[in-house]
Amino acid sequence: MARWEGNARGRLERAALDLFTEQGYGSTTVAQIARRANLTERTFYRWFADKREVLFAGDELEDRFRTAIEAVPAGTAALPTLLAAFASAPEVLRPREFLVERAAVIAANPPLQERELMKQAALSASITAALRDRGHDEQTAQLATDAGMAVVRLAIRRWVTEDHTDFADLLSAGAADLLAVAADGAPATRLP
Amino acid sequence: MARWEGNARGRLERAALDLFTEQGYGSTTVAQIARRANLTERTFYRWFADKREVLFAGDELEDRFRTAIEAVPAGTAALPTLLAAFASAPEVLRPREFLVERAAVIAANPPLQERELMKQAALSASITAALRDRGHDEQTAQLATDAGMAVVRLAIRRWVTEDHTDFADLLSAGAADLLAVAADGAPATRLP
Repeated sequence: MARWEGNARGRLERAALDLFTEQGYGSTTVAQIARRANLTERTFYRWFADKREVLFAGDELEDRFRTAIEAVPAGTAALPTLLAAFASAPEVLRPREFLVERAAVIAANPPLQERELMKQAALSASITAALRDRGHDEQTAQLATDAGMAVVRLAIRRWVTEDHTDFADLLSAGAADLLAVAADGAPATRLP
Repeated sequence: MARWEGNARGRLERAALDLFTEQGYGSTTVAQIARRANLTERTFYRWFADKREVLFAGDELEDRFRTAIEAVPAGTAALPTLLAAFASAPEVLRPREFLVERAAVIAANPPLQERELMKQAALSASITAALRDRGHDEQTAQLATDAGMAVVRLAIRRWVTEDHTDFADLLSAGAADLLAVAADGAPATRLP
């Protein structure tokens, strides 16, 4: 946590979230966020394009997952590739309390909801492209992306609401749960 | 198709899509859409809240899937419940050409992309709630929703780009593909 909270970006995120929670998203300015974090507005804009962006980690996730996907051994199936990549980047997770507050602020502000959905869509597109680059066909790449995002969302929900420490375990458990749900849905191909 | 193209709403959707394609989304007004469809603006607003809404079928999908989910026999597993509901509502699908043009207009206009993502998120939340109402636990409801949405997206992509006529077959094929992807992702629970 120290390596996240301690840096300028982490402090700006924390300050923004506190202000959004205290006085509302709409009434908070970039100047106030910078002041609360004891940093300049210029530093803010080095990390984030605008106020909406501050809760979405810039393009960090996209770059990070892309690099992590490239590092998985060639020949690995699509979904295991994504799970390995997600498991290798736990430092993108924020402290539990931060994620809970962040979710509340986003849920209360439609502009932030839209931004979150656009970010997720961009992340999905980037992950699908990374799988395609590794030789997976388009349909497998898209389906594995949707499946991987479902598993990681489930893992994050559990990570936030339950008392887990190992994110990789939650990803494995989520993948097993997805398999159980999928097996119910395709009776014709189920093994006896 | 006749029962869709023939009604007022279908004509408004068609007129809007034509105008968005011809002259751009930004330069098109509700008045122009109504005129092109030979209908009044008042009729437009009976069906859609605003110009952005016209490509998203109002709340039709949400209501329709909810009703379809309720009609599935009790005791059905979560994902098969969704697949049965999706298969029972094929009339919500638009003609292939319409969907291709619609996708192009949405891809070219960020405000429409945002609206589409918000619609999909609302649809997912509604489907999850419907599963919960049927007694599925929260995690299963959310995971089955994500899985079901992945399958229906795949089925729609195939329906649009290939020459299929039976949407239920595409849903079954998509469910089998999802199972194959999920089985790769959870080696520990895979059968020998």
